[in-house]
Amino acid sequence: MAKGKTMRWIRYERNGEKAYGILEGDSIVEVKGDPFAGYEKSRTMRSLKEVKVLVPVEPRNFYAAGLNYAGHVIEMAKKHGTEPDLPKAADIGYRANNALIADGEAIVIPADAGEEVQYEGELVAVIGRKAKHLSEKDALSCVLGYTIGNDVSERGWQRKDRTLWRAKNTDTFKPMGPWIETEVDLDKLETIVRVNGAETERFKTNSMVFGVAQFLSRMSRYLTLYPGDVVWMGTEGAPQNLKSGDLCEIEIEGIGVLSNPVRREVL
Amino acid sequence: MAKGKTMRWIRYERNGEKAYGILEGDSIVEVKGDPFAGYEKSRTMRSLKEVKVLVPVEPRNFYAAGLNYAGHVIEMAKKHGTEPDLPKAADIGYRANNALIADGEAIVIPADAGEEVQYEGELVAVIGRKAKHLSEKDALSCVLGYTIGNDVSERGWQRKDRTLWRAKNTDTFKPMGPWIETEVDLDKLETIVRVNGAETERFKTNSMVFGVAQFLSRMSRYLTLYPGDVVWMGTEGAPQNLKSGDLCEIEIEGIGVLSNPVRREVL
Repeated sequence: MAKGKTMRWIRYERNGEKAYGILEGDSIVEVKGDPFAGYEKSRTMRSLKEVKVLVPVEPRNFYAAGLNYAGHVIEMAKKHGTEPDLPKAADIGYRANNALIADGEAIVIPADAGEEVQYEGELVAVIGRKAKHLSEKDALSCVLGYTIGNDVSERGWQRKDRTLWRAKNTDTFKPMGPWIETEVDLDKLETIVRVNGAETERFKTNSMVFGVAQFLSRMSRYLTLYPGDVVWMGTEGAPQNLKSGDLCEIEIEGIGVLSNPVRREVL
Repeated sequence: MAKGKTMRWIRYERNGEKAYGILEGDSIVEVKGDPFAGYEKSRTMRSLKEVKVLVPVEPRNFYAAGLNYAGHVIEMAKKHGTEPDLPKAADIGYRANNALIADGEAIVIPADAGEEVQYEGELVAVIGRKAKHLSEKDALSCVLGYTIGNDVSERGWQRKDRTLWRAKNTDTFKPMGPWIETEVDLDKLETIVRVNGAETERFKTNSMVFGVAQFLSRMSRYLTLYPGDVVWMGTEGAPQNLKSGDLCEIEIEGIGVLSNPVRREVL
C-alpha cells in the first residue's frame, strides 16, 4: 500500500452497533463503511475505553503458514520425537473462523484438554484488495496492514488427531487483534510474548523461512486473494504451557499488544 | 429440522441483484432475507431459466471429512503406495471459500497442473442454526438441508505438498450446489458421478465410515457450529481424471444434479 502516515483500523461494538474506526492515540474516528469496500470519516468520535474491541476482520479465507521459523521447527520436532524438517516450499495451511476471539476475551481450555495448551505469537497480514498472480516484488501491494495473532494449540491433540481441527481450531483458540496497523517496517519488528507479565519469547518477526511476499506470491498463483483474508505467519521458539488464571500477551512493537486471559472450561 | 414437505432453497443473481428463493419445479418464489437469519416470501416469481444460479451459501466455516468411505481409502492408499489406514475418529478437515463455484460454472485446471485432476462426488450438510455440545441423537436437528459438492483434487500436488492448499483449494476446485434440499432420507440416497454422460461412480451416499450425526456431534464438542457452515462428507471409489472439454455431473437422487464443464487455463 502507499507509504505514508501510519493508520490504525479498529473494529468495535458500542450499544450493540458494530463499526470500523481510525484509532488516533486513545480516540477513535468512526467511519461509515470499512477499510475494504470503502469508507467515509464521520464526525463521531469515540474513546477507546467506551467501546468493546472486536476481531479486526472476519475473514473470508483464514490462512496460516504453520511451521515457518527454523527454531520452532527444531523445538516441535524435539517434542514430537521426530527429525526437524524445514518446509521446502511456501505451502499455506488453514485455520477456522469459529475459533476467533478479540483482544481482551478469554481463551477457554476445554475441560478434557491436556496440560500442553500453548500460545504461539504470530504476525498476521490482512489483505486489502482482490489479487491474483502477484509477483514477489508486487505481493505486498495487496496488504492493507498487519495485526497480531495467538495460534493457541493443544499439543496432545496436535500429535494424535488426523487433522488440526481441535488442536488449533477449538472455540477461542484464535485471538486476533487488537487492530490493523497499515504502516510497518517488517525488518524492524520484534515479537514478544509475556505470560503474567514475564517475558517468555522474543524474536525477530521477519526471520521467517518464507516471508510474507513469498507466501502471497505463491498462494496467488492458484488462489484469488480477497479483501479481508488473513494470513498468519507462524511463530518462533519453544512455546510454554498456559493454565487457568494466566494472562497471555503478544506484543509486536509498532503494531500493539494482544492480551487475553486464560481459563479452563467447567462442565 | 422438522420433518414435513420438501423445500428447496436456491440462491441466485438476476440483473446484478442476489436473492434467495424457494424452488418449486422450475419456478422460484423469491424471499426477503435468507433461510438462516429468517425470511418472508415475496410476490415475486422467477423462472429457473432467467436467473444465474449461485453457490447456495458462502460459509463462515468450510468443513470437509476427507477420507470417509472405506473403498476410497483403499484406492487412494494404492495410488500413494501406502497401506490403507481407515480414520479412527471423526476428525474433520477444512476447505476454502476462494475455491467455490456454482452449478454450471467451469472448473479451470491451472496451466501447470498434472493430468491427475479428479472429481470427488460428495454429500454436503448445511448448518441452519448455531449449535454446540450436540448429542449424536440430536445432531441432525441443526442441519437446514443438504446439497452436493465436487471436491476436485490434483493428486500430484496432494502427494507432494505439505498441505492440501492447491491440491484441493485452487480457484474453481470446489463446485457446490445446485440448491439446498431440506428433506432427505440419508439411508435411501445414492451418489452417481457422470463424465460426459457416462456413469463412472455409483455408491450408497450414507455408507460412510462416520456419518453426518457422528461428525456434527464430535465437532460440536469443541467448535460452535454456525448458520451457513457446510460439512462435506467425503467420497467413495476410485475417481477418474478430468480433462479440458469434459462435463462432470454429480447427482444425488432426491437432491439434484451438480454439473460443471472443465477447461484448462491458458496463460
